[in-house]
Amino acid sequence: MRVNGKPYRTIWLAPDGRSVEIIDQTLLPHEFATLRLETCDDAARAIKTMQVRGAPLIGATAAYGVALAMRADASDEVLDRCHDALLKTRPTAVNLRWALDDMRTTLRNRRREERVAAAYARAAAIADEDVAINAAIGEHGLALFRRADARKRGERLNVLTHCNAGWLATVDWGTALAPVYKAHDGGIKVHVWVDETRPRNQGMSLTAWELGQHGVPHTVIADNTGGHLMQHGLVDLCIVGTDRTTATGDVCNKIGTYLKALAAKDNGVPFYVALPSPTIDWTVRDGVKGIPIEQRDGTELSRVTGRGADGSVVTVDIAPAGSAMANYAFDVTPSRLVTALVTERGSCAATEAGLGGLFPERTKKKAG
Amino acid sequence: MRVNGKPYRTIWLAPDGRSVEIIDQTLLPHEFATLRLETCDDAARAIKTMQVRGAPLIGATAAYGVALAMRADASDEVLDRCHDALLKTRPTAVNLRWALDDMRTTLRNRRREERVAAAYARAAAIADEDVAINAAIGEHGLALFRRADARKRGERLNVLTHCNAGWLATVDWGTALAPVYKAHDGGIKVHVWVDETRPRNQGMSLTAWELGQHGVPHTVIADNTGGHLMQHGLVDLCIVGTDRTTATGDVCNKIGTYLKALAAKDNGVPFYVALPSPTIDWTVRDGVKGIPIEQRDGTELSRVTGRGADGSVVTVDIAPAGSAMANYAFDVTPSRLVTALVTERGSCAATEAGLGGLFPERTKKKAG
Repeated sequence: MRVNGKPYRTIWLAPDGRSVEIIDQTLLPHEFATLRLETCDDAARAIKTMQVRGAPLIGATAAYGVALAMRADASDEVLDRCHDALLKTRPTAVNLRWALDDMRTTLRNRRREERVAAAYARAAAIADEDVAINAAIGEHGLALFRRADARKRGERLNVLTHCNAGWLATVDWGTALAPVYKAHDGGIKVHVWVDETRPRNQGMSLTAWELGQHGVPHTVIADNTGGHLMQHGLVDLCIVGTDRTTATGDVCNKIGTYLKALAAKDNGVPFYVALPSPTIDWTVRDGVKGIPIEQRDGTELSRVTGRGADGSVVTVDIAPAGSAMANYAFDVTPSRLVTALVTERGSCAATEAGLGGLFPERTKKKAG
Repeated sequence: MRVNGKPYRTIWLAPDGRSVEIIDQTLLPHEFATLRLETCDDAARAIKTMQVRGAPLIGATAAYGVALAMRADASDEVLDRCHDALLKTRPTAVNLRWALDDMRTTLRNRRREERVAAAYARAAAIADEDVAINAAIGEHGLALFRRADARKRGERLNVLTHCNAGWLATVDWGTALAPVYKAHDGGIKVHVWVDETRPRNQGMSLTAWELGQHGVPHTVIADNTGGHLMQHGLVDLCIVGTDRTTATGDVCNKIGTYLKALAAKDNGVPFYVALPSPTIDWTVRDGVKGIPIEQRDGTELSRVTGRGADGSVVTVDIAPAGSAMANYAFDVTPSRLVTALVTERGSCAATEAGLGGLFPERTKKKAG
């Protein structure tokens, strides 16, 4: 999508054809800067410090991380070591393991001298596949938006989203925001309520920023606000992304998603989840019991970064001395609260049968 | 309650027996400072700038403001002028009008030379009455806590609260936190999950601070977190305050309360609301339709104040340039989500019959 009018992806091969460049998302919305990754360690650090974040982009960055490692040393030992180092960076996102396993399978049985080229080719393919998947999610989501828009008779279509499942979370288009961009570009009067998304403020810092850069009307709200808006008919549909969705349709996503889904159910507002199929974890059936929830450092809650009066970027501590902080990064929305899942193959009910209908090869595997 | 080991109220007569002292709450949690009010204007400024806040404390401060005015000039003109000036400070707070009207009625028909003493006496009585109401709420809430604690068999009792309904919002004890203090002082192993409470951060800045000062174990969480904690059995009960509760038990409180109540219902966690009876609005029956929701300035969302690296208190702007902000201050939790209301007369169902049982004089009035 566009930044200052210029099209960007979130990750791309540097002009030297070997290094990889990313947008440093920790600086947004206050500064737009790109960063060069030269090694597997650089990639791991970028993922761990959330310079890149969002399950699909984490997957693509990890794939390029393996390619960077292969360039330095294409041995089995380095392949395994890089795989393991990258896998440890973030525990919840399933795309990370998927991308790393894919890379290892691709490279394992090749001769060492073929591995560098194969690694770069496969990482590029993973990035391109993500873009294609998200564009398809955008089209299938757009059909749902069109249906809601038809009921609005020309009034603005109010969409609520949580966290950032925009193009910044993927290689391009985004998942939850792909239909928003397609709707906006297609002339639907879409307006987005952007949950601030504490504690890391991805809604305030990233979603609002990327919607603003693309010219999509939006309003930032505190995470506490969605229920009130839905009670008063000010939300036509919710759409969020997911870090992992179970075979039965339970949705793990940024902490607070569950609360919005409860409010949507209570007020008859459709609650959609946009997901590329690599995000589906076919091995887990009960999301609340089966998905480990990452706990992050409490300083993400107690320290806030913004622009001071003189324009410089400053971090302030907002907590009382001595108070403990807890920082659970994700929660699980039970499938019963999800109106539909929107995948690259179409929309379906958030059930085993729904997902099985779109991905029969998965169901067959299980039966076999 | 205690600050640095020393007992405090939020407002008290200064050692000179004439001025009034308050805690400057705008500096919390970064600095604890008291402030002396000498005139009616001082009291008005303290309310307007939120150096004091919380409906009961606003009422007590206004009452003392009238006493300060009488000390300077006990004329009818000054009484009226001070009443009107104080009433304008926070036009929505219902206790403010109640306290001011009470003071005017008390003083109007007295001789001027009696007014100063009568004003101080009545202001002190208003403050003491608030303490007594909250202490009674604390005892009735404690009975509910004891019941929950009996099921914990010595494990810590996890209480979730939203915003600040602690002693800082009242003259002492608080409403929602009164049972917490009584439980802690009475030897129950209570631990409080403190919702940060965006956008003004009253949980982070005030609730965590006052619990910490009194030595009550607590953990601050993002507002998004309560649902996840409840799904995993980490919350034994929720208790919040209210700004206005309808005759039918619908609860208007700080934005986001409704979302926590939905999660409590979904997970079978009791959801209690602590309320002094002046908070009940006997004229409204449908809270969602009938209670106007204040919209405040968007900068409360986009600007955050904390302590910088050098220890100075700094305000930073966290929003992307050009993004709109919306700031709804309250929401309404339908009575069906409330397990019980805890008043100074006892606990009851959040229904017309429940409230009528505790306040029969109100029901009789309606029937008559």
